[in-house]
Amino acid sequence: MKLKIKIAVIGVGYVGLPVAISLSKHFDVIAYDNNRVRITELTKGKDTNLDISKKDLSKKSNTIKFTYNFNEIKKCNFYIITLPTPVNNKNQPNLKNISKVNYNLSKILKRNDIVVYESTVYPGCTENRFVKELKKFTSFEYNKDFYVGYSPERINPGDKNKKIHNINKLVSASNKKALSIIKKVYELVVTDAKVITTKSIIVAESAKIIENTQRDLNIALINEFSLILKKLNVSRSEVLKAAKTKWNFLDFHPGLVGGHCIGVDPYYLAFIAKKIKIKPNLILSGRNLNENYYKTIIGSLINNASKKNIDLSKSNLLLCGLTFKSNTPDLRNSQTLKIYKKIMNKVGNIDLYDPIVKKDLIFNIYKKQSVNKLKKNTYDIIVITVKHKEFLKNKKLILSSLKPNRVIIDIPQLFNEKIYDATL
Amino acid sequence: MKLKIKIAVIGVGYVGLPVAISLSKHFDVIAYDNNRVRITELTKGKDTNLDISKKDLSKKSNTIKFTYNFNEIKKCNFYIITLPTPVNNKNQPNLKNISKVNYNLSKILKRNDIVVYESTVYPGCTENRFVKELKKFTSFEYNKDFYVGYSPERINPGDKNKKIHNINKLVSASNKKALSIIKKVYELVVTDAKVITTKSIIVAESAKIIENTQRDLNIALINEFSLILKKLNVSRSEVLKAAKTKWNFLDFHPGLVGGHCIGVDPYYLAFIAKKIKIKPNLILSGRNLNENYYKTIIGSLINNASKKNIDLSKSNLLLCGLTFKSNTPDLRNSQTLKIYKKIMNKVGNIDLYDPIVKKDLIFNIYKKQSVNKLKKNTYDIIVITVKHKEFLKNKKLILSSLKPNRVIIDIPQLFNEKIYDATL
Repeated sequence: MKLKIKIAVIGVGYVGLPVAISLSKHFDVIAYDNNRVRITELTKGKDTNLDISKKDLSKKSNTIKFTYNFNEIKKCNFYIITLPTPVNNKNQPNLKNISKVNYNLSKILKRNDIVVYESTVYPGCTENRFVKELKKFTSFEYNKDFYVGYSPERINPGDKNKKIHNINKLVSASNKKALSIIKKVYELVVTDAKVITTKSIIVAESAKIIENTQRDLNIALINEFSLILKKLNVSRSEVLKAAKTKWNFLDFHPGLVGGHCIGVDPYYLAFIAKKIKIKPNLILSGRNLNENYYKTIIGSLINNASKKNIDLSKSNLLLCGLTFKSNTPDLRNSQTLKIYKKIMNKVGNIDLYDPIVKKDLIFNIYKKQSVNKLKKNTYDIIVITVKHKEFLKNKKLILSSLKPNRVIIDIPQLFNEKIYDATL
Repeated sequence: MKLKIKIAVIGVGYVGLPVAISLSKHFDVIAYDNNRVRITELTKGKDTNLDISKKDLSKKSNTIKFTYNFNEIKKCNFYIITLPTPVNNKNQPNLKNISKVNYNLSKILKRNDIVVYESTVYPGCTENRFVKELKKFTSFEYNKDFYVGYSPERINPGDKNKKIHNINKLVSASNKKALSIIKKVYELVVTDAKVITTKSIIVAESAKIIENTQRDLNIALINEFSLILKKLNVSRSEVLKAAKTKWNFLDFHPGLVGGHCIGVDPYYLAFIAKKIKIKPNLILSGRNLNENYYKTIIGSLINNASKKNIDLSKSNLLLCGLTFKSNTPDLRNSQTLKIYKKIMNKVGNIDLYDPIVKKDLIFNIYKKQSVNKLKKNTYDIIVITVKHKEFLKNKKLILSSLKPNRVIIDIPQLFNEKIYDATL
């Protein structure tokens, strides 16, 4: 590498922060985010996403600089975009965040700059959309004056074993020169796995989207199967245990699919499919099923309350865990919000409880204050949605917050089947 | 086991024959089938399914007796039903074969007899339907005078490594006494894997049906994804190679799903789902996609013929391979028949070729004589559908049967990409 590489990581969330931290051991890194609160916290060494410890954040060897001032990244020549790519309320790609950054980058692009996208997009998006946006306010020519790369993030939030350094990383670029540079940059941080090049950007985009779509669909199948078994009154766990004895059965479990990856990415694939006149029936059928699967929880809740003569309209209910996944404070696309909205008018009172999420974030989404501590003998019904370590440590406390005649809906099986009334 | 067990295997096809052969090393076994041709051939030591060698069939240690006379099995006390469970033209379960046998068994049942089903059925079928049929002409009481078991076959046709002795086998029964006997019987033949009991018959029925449904759906997803990539002009093999570098990506490939298992079983699951008022949208969406995926072949054929200025209506086409899978002579539910029907009026002449299938079986299904040998310089178009060993051995011969200007549609990639014009 002849260039002195100065890196800007744009978007310092679940994906961007670990990337920035890793790269800062080898390069000057500026980590930009327009979220001032987030940047202020990170500057103080606090990662409210709980991915990076205070110790790691403040290690002196790191030459990372956090900023919410876009101008500060002007001096960089290697930009990594790690912004979220959610869907809008019609489940279509919402790429506003990245487009805005692209326009801003267009104003500051220098000759030979490289822009790498890590965000999940539909196949073709980088070169058909992002490159056009990057060219908007510049006279630079694509692949002559500046270069683009795509390297899909494969972060697994809450997973303490799979991290950047040991996850195989795909890299692609607009030409060989850029590909070689991008590969070398990532090879410095992916130390215990491979950096694999693909022949084109669209291959890497496609690979990422099928990975998550495959997972969504497999969970959807087990969800559909579970609905059938439930109605047939057959034990799902026994059936899956039996099926697993076949050499090629895939060990999936039913689940409430939320978050910003598996529950979103298939919509991106469906979007491009529709655009080229292919009906993505299967992909959307799985997505639709998973989007509605939370309703089984509400069915269990109503049935079990009725069995125990608990009048829902007068009951006190605890929603225990509000994130989309265990051990991550990420509230995005959590199915728990849907459960909350669906039952809020049916239930006397609902208390919200999640000790690993900042209270103001909960309030922003639920428009209701969450509780700090559990009081004894308070709730008629509890819906446990995730298996945070904090819950595992405090199982007795959670149980003691319930009245003697109570319904326990235990989605993650925090307790065993003798204790809970229903699980997913 | 105090009983002297005499076994009747009813249905001596892909499933029944290996079961009968294995059991005959330990028990007196009568293998019954109403197909006289099949029984006559087996008696002569010939398995046209190519599963069992002449040597194994005629080993003297085997005490197996083949018959097409139902009366001969009267003296047995342990019946194993290995009959096919296809679907009718509305894709609903066609259980006529088994029902007929059940009625016949009902007339000859003796006290303490055990009837074990290995055929794939929908959850609940054995006890809700078969048991009733078994009781039709007898005064015996279920679970007091006779017993029932269910042990799903997990045969993988054409697979030379996975055989009865090393495939984990699920067994279930109507009560503990029968379960213990059934387990012991199968343990004598499943020597290198486990015999696993399930708590009820419906658990084993459900486990079997989800296994095959899961496979069907995963292939369907890759098929849908392939349609999208094809239209985007992106190399599927490169995308799947890239996706496989993620630790949890599942290595499925596009496929024409035929045969009597994966392409049929999901309909059984859908049947019971509808019966209990659950819409099996996802399962049927996958099935529907796979049922229609052969059309992509026809699209490739038409496009490539046009590119090479071959007039389809005057062309000579070779359909090379007619079975649903490589290295098995099984023609059932082969997608090749669908291709044939769809193109027969568009193409000048179609020759059928499959050296491992009996010619009369081909004629029964295609209503056309197949060719015995390939002539040189004869065909404008070839559609290769499977990778029989016979084809691998004769690649040159196959190529030499084609004219210099030709289209090669090579579904199983018998040749490499430099040679074929299109693959699946």
